Amino acid sequence: MQRTIVELLAAKRDGEALSADDIGRFVRAFMDGSLADYQMASWLMAVFFRGLDDAETVALTDAMLHSGRVLDLSGVSGVKVDKHSTGGVGDKISLCLAPLVAACGVPVPMVSGRGLGHTGGTLDKLEAIPGFRTDIAADRFAEIVRDVGTCMIGQTAEIAPADKRIYALRDVTATVECIPLIVASILSKKLAEGIDGLVLDVKVGRGAFMKDEARARALAEALVRVGTRAGKKVVALLTRMDAPLGVAVGNANETREAIDVLNGGGPGDVVECTMALGAEMLVLGGRASTLEEARARLAKAIASGDGARTFERMIAAQGGDARVVAEPGRLEIASVEVAVQAPRGGFVESVDALAIGLAAVAMGAGRARADAKVDPAVGLSIDAKPGTRVNAGDTLARVHVRRASDAPAIAERVLAAFAIGDIQRVPPPLVCGRLGA
Amino acid sequence: MQRTIVELLAAKRDGEALSADDIGRFVRAFMDGSLADYQMASWLMAVFFRGLDDAETVALTDAMLHSGRVLDLSGVSGVKVDKHSTGGVGDKISLCLAPLVAACGVPVPMVSGRGLGHTGGTLDKLEAIPGFRTDIAADRFAEIVRDVGTCMIGQTAEIAPADKRIYALRDVTATVECIPLIVASILSKKLAEGIDGLVLDVKVGRGAFMKDEARARALAEALVRVGTRAGKKVVALLTRMDAPLGVAVGNANETREAIDVLNGGGPGDVVECTMALGAEMLVLGGRASTLEEARARLAKAIASGDGARTFERMIAAQGGDARVVAEPGRLEIASVEVAVQAPRGGFVESVDALAIGLAAVAMGAGRARADAKVDPAVGLSIDAKPGTRVNAGDTLARVHVRRASDAPAIAERVLAAFAIGDIQRVPPPLVCGRLGA
Repeated sequence: MQRTIVELLAAKRDGEALSADDIGRFVRAFMDGSLADYQMASWLMAVFFRGLDDAETVALTDAMLHSGRVLDLSGVSGVKVDKHSTGGVGDKISLCLAPLVAACGVPVPMVSGRGLGHTGGTLDKLEAIPGFRTDIAADRFAEIVRDVGTCMIGQTAEIAPADKRIYALRDVTATVECIPLIVASILSKKLAEGIDGLVLDVKVGRGAFMKDEARARALAEALVRVGTRAGKKVVALLTRMDAPLGVAVGNANETREAIDVLNGGGPGDVVECTMALGAEMLVLGGRASTLEEARARLAKAIASGDGARTFERMIAAQGGDARVVAEPGRLEIASVEVAVQAPRGGFVESVDALAIGLAAVAMGAGRARADAKVDPAVGLSIDAKPGTRVNAGDTLARVHVRRASDAPAIAERVLAAFAIGDIQRVPPPLVCGRLGA
Repeated sequence: MQRTIVELLAAKRDGEALSADDIGRFVRAFMDGSLADYQMASWLMAVFFRGLDDAETVALTDAMLHSGRVLDLSGVSGVKVDKHSTGGVGDKISLCLAPLVAACGVPVPMVSGRGLGHTGGTLDKLEAIPGFRTDIAADRFAEIVRDVGTCMIGQTAEIAPADKRIYALRDVTATVECIPLIVASILSKKLAEGIDGLVLDVKVGRGAFMKDEARARALAEALVRVGTRAGKKVVALLTRMDAPLGVAVGNANETREAIDVLNGGGPGDVVECTMALGAEMLVLGGRASTLEEARARLAKAIASGDGARTFERMIAAQGGDARVVAEPGRLEIASVEVAVQAPRGGFVESVDALAIGLAAVAMGAGRARADAKVDPAVGLSIDAKPGTRVNAGDTLARVHVRRASDAPAIAERVLAAFAIGDIQRVPPPLVCGRLGA
């Protein structure tokens, strides 16, 4: 006899591993309204305490994935590989990575998110490009991936709607910080893209969702285990997110920085993150047999301009002004620039990515609530990265705002994010771990 | 700065003890709608895992109690004492206990419940009396307690509405079996009566909510600790609920049995339970200095008829036909009586109270759902109690139904509740523990 919803709640509460059938029924009942929000909330908290084993996490991923439409990319030849980042400050990697990997022959179908809290979102950065649309219908998405090699859209109502509803509930019931639920949420959305492989960028540090390396590693391991069990090729890199990635934090300025990478420039850490993730994607996609070979191909796609041309084609296919790739100055940056100066000489010991991310939210570059709007033109430039020697009065950062009156409060917050000391510490390597095939 | 609701959820999830202020704010937010059902559900599951300490349980009790009206019994002189049972099968004790204790000079204001699941409810038994009303307004309730010494009503919308809503949520989110939540639920309702003292009858065994003696004892201890901390005089007795209490299981038949006790008769276990709880109430109420003295007073109130007269006055004050006390035959019992016979000779080793309670629900004497109706006239008589010697064919029990066609299925269930063996086991004493002052 099928157990009732309350019996399933009690079973998880008491530490029982639920069957794939039970989990599937549970998610379907939630979607058809026969399982109430408060019952799902209670279950999520029970899962917080009791966990889900890998089989249960696969079942939950599968149930959420099949709550909506799985994109049909059968018309796209090749091994389709996507990248997912757990989110950070200044993380504009998707914008340069996807076109570059696509230019090397690996199709990259990408469903991205918006910024929330201190972390930015790929969609917001893309929408800084005049005319760019992220609400592309599923059929057209497949066409663009086939023709251009990559397309970047937002999570539609069709993609994993159960994940969307469950995530909204976790957000208001203190059940976000739970590894199996995070894993199922990430994988259900990514698997709905119709991909064959996935490279995960699991951020760790002050500006990351996981502040602690052991927790980040546990998340990366679970993502690789569960994703592999779900039949996908999965690799995860652990990358540092103590300080913001790159110089630009905002939207239009981050898009400019990503374009700089495609044009052969860009800050060293942004280039390294792009190369490290891109190399994994080329290997998973069968376009390189070693990471070294893959890096060489990526470098060639930058040098030849193939990556930049792919980004132009993608922008054009998605309705945007592709001229921004050759002329990044077309992306508007707010006209008032105020420098944040070093109060003393010494070495930049740290730049608190969380504090910078929250300052960006305060200035309108990010959002505290999911329904808020962002101003693509405002943002920050972190000029003095950790390890830099500075003299008193040197520019540590710049604040880009629309009105001069907005600057002082933001500048003060940005300054507070810097720690200046007497010892030059070499920042640890960006990539601090690798898991998977 | 006040923490947000989600921060309070996370704090409890992470094992923090919440302040009385935070708990008060939490319950008020639930009642005014700013804290959603799903957030309360998540908190309740976190409490299931993390518990509440005594100070938190007092704060929760207090917040639920003050979500509604606290009955004003300042016009009633004396130390007001109530009794609460955690529920069992055949538990009609309140009906004889309250008038008897009131007759001895201790006012007994009593807010009771209805039967649910396998356990019966005092209100259903009282309503077997023609005309009897349990929906008495608060002011009239206080008057009846003052004039008669006792009054028995149902939980109105005014009494601890937060408990009512939280209990309904616990019922559907697998968070019922949690001692601090049970304690706060019981005490918030009882303290809303304006009482000074409380005697708890914590049932343990097959037919009880707590099947296990260690859990029952833990509940009793928590009730005494928290109730005492809330400023009340509290005593708890642990009593066995392996077999049904008394002979009658139903409604009208249980009311008849309670009247039998007031008239000097009744089954031994019902009399003993009444005397044990009543003695505690007289001592708490200051009408006896020892339990022995209290028992003697109770016996005198039975012998003199004072208890029966008090019950008559209470029935009359609540609109019922008080003649039932002198003439219990006025309480209608369904006319079809079918005997359940012993299939073999031997000794009754056990009568499963849970199975009997469920059989009573099946025949319409109890309810599986809170909104179901009961038939006061149907019921069971358990003639052969544990320890009784029986011959094959002897009557073990009788089924009282309206239609003969209803009897066989019920009789079969009742028979299955009996275990007959070759060894005469003496049932353990009814009262198996005592906690408190």
